[in-house]
Amino acid sequence: MRRIDHVGVAVPDIDEGLDWYVGALGGEAVHREVNETQGVVEVMVSWPGGGPQVQLLAPLDGASPIAKFLEKKGPGLQQLAFTVDDVEAAGAALRDRGAQLLYDSARPGTAGSRINFVHPRDAGGVLVELVEPAAA
Amino acid sequence: MRRIDHVGVAVPDIDEGLDWYVGALGGEAVHREVNETQGVVEVMVSWPGGGPQVQLLAPLDGASPIAKFLEKKGPGLQQLAFTVDDVEAAGAALRDRGAQLLYDSARPGTAGSRINFVHPRDAGGVLVELVEPAAA
Repeated sequence: MRRIDHVGVAVPDIDEGLDWYVGALGGEAVHREVNETQGVVEVMVSWPGGGPQVQLLAPLDGASPIAKFLEKKGPGLQQLAFTVDDVEAAGAALRDRGAQLLYDSARPGTAGSRINFVHPRDAGGVLVELVEPAAA
Repeated sequence: MRRIDHVGVAVPDIDEGLDWYVGALGGEAVHREVNETQGVVEVMVSWPGGGPQVQLLAPLDGASPIAKFLEKKGPGLQQLAFTVDDVEAAGAALRDRGAQLLYDSARPGTAGSRINFVHPRDAGGVLVELVEPAAA
């Protein structure tokens, strides 16, 4: 676990989300992507002082996990993502501690990364994402 | 708004929280403080790769805002904090956009900082904290 990669925020509408995070909070939208596997449109927002990004997540349709999150909990903080060197090794180490991971093996994430998630039940109520960035 | 300062996580018990964030996720507890004003015990956790910290927040008693958060939403992501140069100026700029701040003027935060919060209703469901660090 190297560092916090990003903080995911569920928003009903990407443009409203950008109005707040870019218009009001001074961030810059640096990457936009549709992830069909996850059922979301994602925009990464970063700040001039560097550091981790906010990932705005809006549902593509009602079957998206984000649509279900919004329905159950409303908009807000949805996940905490950590950069890891090796998503399979990090997942195995957490499984050894008794944590359940959502996928048997990693799936495609933003910008060519490979990702998995720890079940919030085993992570103090937080959806923890493990992100192995794409090879440079 | 310079950058993300920390991500606040509500935990019922600080030691259980540390077991997960330090024991399992590889962080290091770098600062511990009781904030009577906020009714919390706080531990800042950082990672070897640098970047923002996780702030574990456990209630001092049942009247703590964190106790109310845990009761209503359960443990999990509770706030997103941004470093600002001037907490009063940042608050005024957000008020000008129609956002409500929780305090009329900033209050004492962790490690001599001055803090205020944007009401989650005006921030897409996220409790946004503004942190002006203590003067060096």
